[in-house]
Amino acid sequence: MIQSRVEVTVRYAETDMMGIVYHANYLPWFEVGRTTLLKEIGVPYRRLEEAGFRLPVLEVAAKFLRPAVYDDTLEVTATVREKPLLRIRIDYEVRRGEELLATGNSLHAFVDLEGRPVRPPPWVAEMFNVAFGRPQPVPPAKSASSSSRK
Amino acid sequence: MIQSRVEVTVRYAETDMMGIVYHANYLPWFEVGRTTLLKEIGVPYRRLEEAGFRLPVLEVAAKFLRPAVYDDTLEVTATVREKPLLRIRIDYEVRRGEELLATGNSLHAFVDLEGRPVRPPPWVAEMFNVAFGRPQPVPPAKSASSSSRK
Amino acid sequence: MIQSRVEVTVRYAETDMMGIVYHANYLPWFEVGRTTLLKEIGVPYRRLEEAGFRLPVLEVAAKFLRPAVYDDTLEVTATVREKPLLRIRIDYEVRRGEELLATGNSLHAFVDLEGRPVRPPPWVAEMFNVAFGRPQPVPPAKSASSSSRK
Amino acid sequence: MIQSRVEVTVRYAETDMMGIVYHANYLPWFEVGRTTLLKEIGVPYRRLEEAGFRLPVLEVAAKFLRPAVYDDTLEVTATVREKPLLRIRIDYEVRRGEELLATGNSLHAFVDLEGRPVRPPPWVAEMFNVAFGRPQPVPPAKSASSSSRK
Repeated sequence: MIQSRVEVTVRYAETDMMGIVYHANYLPWFEVGRTTLLKEIGVPYRRLEEAGFRLPVLEVAAKFLRPAVYDDTLEVTATVREKPLLRIRIDYEVRRGEELLATGNSLHAFVDLEGRPVRPPPWVAEMFNVAFGRPQPVPPAKSASSSSRK
Repeated sequence: MIQSRVEVTVRYAETDMMGIVYHANYLPWFEVGRTTLLKEIGVPYRRLEEAGFRLPVLEVAAKFLRPAVYDDTLEVTATVREKPLLRIRIDYEVRRGEELLATGNSLHAFVDLEGRPVRPPPWVAEMFNVAFGRPQPVPPAKSASSSSRK
Repeated sequence: MIQSRVEVTVRYAETDMMGIVYHANYLPWFEVGRTTLLKEIGVPYRRLEEAGFRLPVLEVAAKFLRPAVYDDTLEVTATVREKPLLRIRIDYEVRRGEELLATGNSLHAFVDLEGRPVRPPPWVAEMFNVAFGRPQPVPPAKSASSSSRK
Repeated sequence: MIQSRVEVTVRYAETDMMGIVYHANYLPWFEVGRTTLLKEIGVPYRRLEEAGFRLPVLEVAAKFLRPAVYDDTLEVTATVREKPLLRIRIDYEVRRGEELLATGNSLHAFVDLEGRPVRPPPWVAEMFNVAFGRPQPVPPAKSASSSSRK
């Protein structure tokens, strides 16, 4: 398991007339969590795109347990539980202090610039291996997901 | 089953550097579909809020099958399959012509202005009854969901 | 002068905790007005980009006179007063019925895919000439702005 | 003059198909700058709203000099040059390192919950007095502003 945490502060722009954060605005926070996690394991998404790879969102889901309000400082946790092969699944939690406000997850595919599903480049697989704590040859990596770090 | 359709045209603001619509921007389209459906059955959300009720999003999920791009005209379909009691679940489909681009769903609770779960007001229950084609006493409405209209 | 009108309906997503539309959300409406105007004169922005040209925003300004609220149907008017040469300036008005809610303007440059300022392609200049009602050789077009259409 | 600085990191959600930040997304950054400045001088906007006051945007303007791209870390500077009386004007600069990417300004009115223009509460005037470096009696605050404003 690899995990990272990052803080976001709620913008006025992110609230709605209910006085709380509009639900869709949690998704860019998930993205901030994702960006942070990828950067921390040595796979900055910007570099991934420069290398000709993309990680479009195939699926996303979220549950909203308690509302976040303007100017709240929140902690976004992003977690990858299984080493990605062709797809990567990320889980999210949004907290205000101890309070869990929302949970969610997203599923992404590695694709090339034409949108075709591809295996991530070797350096990316390697970074994930390192992050998951068990350097090993990339293909086959199928059984790798059963173990976890952290 | 009650269903409504509405068109949206993709704004430049809704695209991202991948050249396609940023995934989170489908959620406001779902909301447009929801707003349209509620209006069509005689329960405009604006009137619902004026009456002291709200329908916050408890859960939302989406799957992205094909990308939408700038200036696409899309059709958003919103469907309620079961007559709502305390909660309402809505399914969505986003299409460009015949092509299905995305599906999704959201779950909402009727709450009062303090955020406490409440039964929707009688006129709202009545409008849903009418829309589902079978006017009947509101409580108990539990078994109502097995039938459908349209 | 060339002008076009288009309707937008306020989304819940566009409101903020003040209960009104968040000011920044008028700018995508201006964009909807701009997109409509360009399409109506035969220069759809999508085609412009496909031809290797872009119209980035150099400046934007807006004044907010009266608030727009959720589910309002608004009319966005976009006006080009002077035939564009290297830059194009567009004025906007947002109305709810007779009420003027906001005014604004944006300034854009024609640039190529590398971001270098360029003259718009001949077919674009021609379309603007037609729209301004006086077909004529493109350069010099400086004095063209004194006449108007519509 | 009072001034504050705050960092923002560009989100993928904030980019558009031009590969750069969509212009409207600078406005929430201006808001982040504004929120920071008000907090630093002891007038957190959240507390202002709780006290029954609001600061709606009357006007906003921005110039875009160089594009910001995904994952850029930017510095937003917010500056109040004149002590506010009934209105407050704030200037903004967005920088990436030494590079100035955008400038802008916004004009706000102090209003009550019904939207009527009001004088800001004494504690707010006091905080601005302190921030402008000249502590002096708050009520009457009428003459306080004459020394510093235009």
